[in-house]
Amino acid sequence: MDITALRSKNPDHWMRATAIRALALDAVAAANSGHSGMPIGMADVATVLFGKHLKFDAAHPDWPDRDRFILSAGHGSMLLYALLYLSGDPEITLDQVKNFRQWGSKTAGHPENFLAQAIETTTGPLGQGIANSVGFAMAEEMLRARFGRKVVDHHTYVIAGDGCLMEGVSHEAIGLAGRYGLGRLIVFWDNNGITIDGKVSLSDRTDQIKRFRASGWHVQEIDGHDPDAIDAAIEAAKKTKAPSMIACKTHIALGHAAQDTSKGHGALTNVEQNDAAKAGWGWKSAPFDVPADIKTWWEQAGRRGAAERTEWESRLAGLSANRQAEFARVMAGEPPRKLAGTIRALKKQISESAPKVATRKSSEMVLEVVNPVMRETIGGSADLTGSNNTLTGDLGVFDVDNRKGRYVYWGIREHGMASAMNGMALHGGIRPYGGTFMCFTDYARPAMRLSALMKQPVVYVMTHDSIGLGEDGPTHQPVEHLAISRATPNTLVFRPCDTVETAEAWEIALRQTSTPSVLSLTRQNLPTLRREHKTANLVEKGAYVLAEADGKRQVILMATGSEVSIAMAARDTLQAQGIGTRVVSMPCWELFEQQDETYRKRVLPAGPVRVAVEAGVRFGWDRWLYGERGRREKSGFVGMHGFGASAPAEVLYEKFGITPAAVAQKARDIVEGRWQADMTV
Amino acid sequence: MDITALRSKNPDHWMRATAIRALALDAVAAANSGHSGMPIGMADVATVLFGKHLKFDAAHPDWPDRDRFILSAGHGSMLLYALLYLSGDPEITLDQVKNFRQWGSKTAGHPENFLAQAIETTTGPLGQGIANSVGFAMAEEMLRARFGRKVVDHHTYVIAGDGCLMEGVSHEAIGLAGRYGLGRLIVFWDNNGITIDGKVSLSDRTDQIKRFRASGWHVQEIDGHDPDAIDAAIEAAKKTKAPSMIACKTHIALGHAAQDTSKGHGALTNVEQNDAAKAGWGWKSAPFDVPADIKTWWEQAGRRGAAERTEWESRLAGLSANRQAEFARVMAGEPPRKLAGTIRALKKQISESAPKVATRKSSEMVLEVVNPVMRETIGGSADLTGSNNTLTGDLGVFDVDNRKGRYVYWGIREHGMASAMNGMALHGGIRPYGGTFMCFTDYARPAMRLSALMKQPVVYVMTHDSIGLGEDGPTHQPVEHLAISRATPNTLVFRPCDTVETAEAWEIALRQTSTPSVLSLTRQNLPTLRREHKTANLVEKGAYVLAEADGKRQVILMATGSEVSIAMAARDTLQAQGIGTRVVSMPCWELFEQQDETYRKRVLPAGPVRVAVEAGVRFGWDRWLYGERGRREKSGFVGMHGFGASAPAEVLYEKFGITPAAVAQKARDIVEGRWQADMTV
Repeated sequence: MDITALRSKNPDHWMRATAIRALALDAVAAANSGHSGMPIGMADVATVLFGKHLKFDAAHPDWPDRDRFILSAGHGSMLLYALLYLSGDPEITLDQVKNFRQWGSKTAGHPENFLAQAIETTTGPLGQGIANSVGFAMAEEMLRARFGRKVVDHHTYVIAGDGCLMEGVSHEAIGLAGRYGLGRLIVFWDNNGITIDGKVSLSDRTDQIKRFRASGWHVQEIDGHDPDAIDAAIEAAKKTKAPSMIACKTHIALGHAAQDTSKGHGALTNVEQNDAAKAGWGWKSAPFDVPADIKTWWEQAGRRGAAERTEWESRLAGLSANRQAEFARVMAGEPPRKLAGTIRALKKQISESAPKVATRKSSEMVLEVVNPVMRETIGGSADLTGSNNTLTGDLGVFDVDNRKGRYVYWGIREHGMASAMNGMALHGGIRPYGGTFMCFTDYARPAMRLSALMKQPVVYVMTHDSIGLGEDGPTHQPVEHLAISRATPNTLVFRPCDTVETAEAWEIALRQTSTPSVLSLTRQNLPTLRREHKTANLVEKGAYVLAEADGKRQVILMATGSEVSIAMAARDTLQAQGIGTRVVSMPCWELFEQQDETYRKRVLPAGPVRVAVEAGVRFGWDRWLYGERGRREKSGFVGMHGFGASAPAEVLYEKFGITPAAVAQKARDIVEGRWQADMTV
Repeated sequence: MDITALRSKNPDHWMRATAIRALALDAVAAANSGHSGMPIGMADVATVLFGKHLKFDAAHPDWPDRDRFILSAGHGSMLLYALLYLSGDPEITLDQVKNFRQWGSKTAGHPENFLAQAIETTTGPLGQGIANSVGFAMAEEMLRARFGRKVVDHHTYVIAGDGCLMEGVSHEAIGLAGRYGLGRLIVFWDNNGITIDGKVSLSDRTDQIKRFRASGWHVQEIDGHDPDAIDAAIEAAKKTKAPSMIACKTHIALGHAAQDTSKGHGALTNVEQNDAAKAGWGWKSAPFDVPADIKTWWEQAGRRGAAERTEWESRLAGLSANRQAEFARVMAGEPPRKLAGTIRALKKQISESAPKVATRKSSEMVLEVVNPVMRETIGGSADLTGSNNTLTGDLGVFDVDNRKGRYVYWGIREHGMASAMNGMALHGGIRPYGGTFMCFTDYARPAMRLSALMKQPVVYVMTHDSIGLGEDGPTHQPVEHLAISRATPNTLVFRPCDTVETAEAWEIALRQTSTPSVLSLTRQNLPTLRREHKTANLVEKGAYVLAEADGKRQVILMATGSEVSIAMAARDTLQAQGIGTRVVSMPCWELFEQQDETYRKRVLPAGPVRVAVEAGVRFGWDRWLYGERGRREKSGFVGMHGFGASAPAEVLYEKFGITPAAVAQKARDIVEGRWQADMTV
């Protein structure tokens, strides 16, 4: 690569871009870890984008109508930090850049959305950024349709690398963007031909141009170091109605000894080589130093959107007071006032009518009353709409010609759906929920973890939550998936036992501002157990006494979801045998753990025999069986000990021994001193 | 669709294919659940494939050189069961077909590989079959290169639906097959344009033809109901060097009232409509009845390969005795005799030299001695070769021009890698292992679960297994992933503390025939703790006493992996304070759980204070803290309470309080009566 030619062709641009290169090189070298080559290679694209096109006001990174910039190739985080520091972001200061990858800094190894306002999303797990961006772009379309182009009118820009495009989730994202005609989405592909193991061609020879075109994208191919070509390509991309991919041929670690090699992908720390690279770039400043004229130019770029933002504020002020308040409310992620009353009214009605329905149907009953009063909800399903019961009458279907539609047919794309829902939540103004079979938590996992890490209140509607699914068999029957979500930090896992608990769980989930929720819902019908209306939300405590023992309390049955009614039936048997039995419904462990010791002790007092009932694996239950004043020799577990099987649901419950009779027998055996070591297994 | 025209054009073929249609319709109606439309739509393709092309001998479904047939669209399982019953498979009898989806039958809702030999793989979670097939086809290439075309010379055929092609993993699979020129792989796309939610176009408008071509596939488009076109397409596909995709335009539920609708995707149970469909098809037999001439034709098809199989046996017998024995051994999945001695010698040498290395490096040291004596191992990494330490000197790289290469550059495709490894293991003759960062368990999860369900001894080399990863931050730092794998049935999760334990863990993993293993390995260096050589494999017990208390045993420290050396250092502190402390290394919980009560009690006796140390979440640890004779008020946990952060590893251990000092302090506090309720949290 002829650096001299690049320098002389457009010297002003070159030095502005090289400020990014130098900062990236310095910060990675100081941290002795990180990725130098990508920021160096993509500095030209980023400079043209931030310098001329991106609508932003550096002093106000929370401006709702800003363009979103997503660094899907998150390992190149110094590109983002350099851009933010140079343009005058209030949080990413020079000190932060100097503390790249250090404890307590905002400049983490990979961009973390919760560390600075201008970091739109957390990236690093490859493919997530580009999949998030689909949700960002959908959210923009939806809000524009709802609030008007005067207050919502922006683009979503993405930088994606070869790794992002090799990950499967990119296929789902690209398909969605093409299908839904997300014309405000513009993706730059950093086509540098290098991965960690070597050349891309070592493991992939996909023609990305043809691939994107096959999914309906507008595609351009440019020299990623030519500022004029970059500028023209962005102009063209903004004009098309299709989502745009700009393939930018770049050189990783441009001008460095490691250029065009996989070494250039990592941390460049050799002092001599780094000095030589800077010399070649014509960069004469000390480490972390940026010449005043260059910094000034960048800061002007950071203020470029200030006037536009002020005008936007005027336009917002021009909306009716109601519209303004609604816009502010949904952007803040606050639930509407009506929510509590709506849920309460439904609970009252349900306690009276006591329907026997599957909790997936209960969930639909909740959504039928919630969606009309909470117009920021966006529902969807990964091609299981009729099974997940996620579509309610009033939503309308989101499509190219119906941006007001609030239901998304995500197709068979659990991962893409979850990742796009993260994008919607991150964008703001939208409260996304999406459904699939609970077993396919596995497909959505990478994005579900990120919901938790990124503190986004996405709601996962996971139906068919056990062997109760029946004939579809073990590939479709979750057994370890409750444990998987419960083990994940910052995640509320709800397994409601009837429609009333389902309504309470939904209410809590919709009130969250920084925690995702997993609703574990049945395929099979369940009786209404909460027949006495209580205005209080009992699920909020996580666990509570559903039925007290008659007479001396000898047994506590703990259960969740579909097994609570089994525990209740077992209680009848035990009580008939003179064994006083309490039933504790435990719809949300995480909330129960947050209660104080006094409450927990009241629900789970020491002394009685404990039997836990859940049609999943035991893993995790030991906390309640042995801990919390329990004792091994006074406890038992009734649940799954391995994978399920294909048969009708009732047969499976019988064959796997998850029945009222089996629960009562186990409890009675322990009460009467016939405990065995395998009872808890 | 003009059924009459189809019937009259090729009446013999029509009735043979319609036998499949009728059986599928009858079995689904009898089960009152399942998927009728797909078998009906793909019956013509399947009839031509099984009737003329597929190399198989129905009486010997375990013939190693058979063509593999993979029903990626696993919900259409009745297609497979009908084919097997008709062609005379010894296991899938008419009774089995009549017991479709019932308890104890081999004809589960989705095909389960462990229920009948002829079921090559478990499918149902969409996209898995096509991704498995990449592994099947690679295994064939590898074994052909190793044992010669006289004994290994077959094709892999796949039927994939729209759902398979929408899932992200299909992108990874298609990319791999294209890159590695898997010419023996032939995929039929059941292009029926229908998903559960409606038309495919509702959620996807990808041009699949262009998409496959972009990844280097040979693509043909045919009428999937025209037997001549199907035949010609298969012939052409067999001749190309590229992997082949045959887009078969079909009508789901052909000739039924539900034809071409999403209703046709599910269970067709309306008696009148089903009778009308049969009448239209010209099918006059009673339910489950197949006219003798048609059954005879199918059984002849099932015997078509008998002579070829006999000839193959002669050719196999023509190999040297050593080669025959080796072929039999690897196909049986038995480890070589030399394995035990090789591991023992390494352990001895390591105990003496006591290197301080990361366990990812330990793993490489093991592979360096194992790979030369176990030539069925196939290694690989999802673009982290230098980080996962999975490539050893002797392997060679698998490529189009080096089919003997035993290392696969999988690219940034964790899911595709895991799924392809399942395919290799299912094919037989190969023992695959593959690496990625442990946090990306999330990406590979759907296939990792299937390794366990399908009983395939795949080895997952998961490095960078905690905050010890350092600066890359929380997106790359697993905290819940040990719990995720431990919660999964039939999975061995190893977290070795040094090179000796790593060698022992590998030995156990390589001896498995029906259980996958997860190796959780560090990025950071660890001391050799097992300095005294023992021939016995201590990891086999799952947990054992690594260091006994001096004096009265007041404390038991339980730890795994990198935290064992922290526990050992804490023990030094506690012993110096006069507190007798035992350290228990727990490299594999699942194996420890399998030990008898006496052994478990010897390792974890009642009485002493217990403190568990693991740089992950507590979830699951309660079994050892509270259960197994432990007590809440005498136990504590030192580990992670949420996600990690970006900083150097040592800083993170310090900041998150996972240090010898913190462990010793907690143990001492409890011993001295300063237990607090939050100590276990």
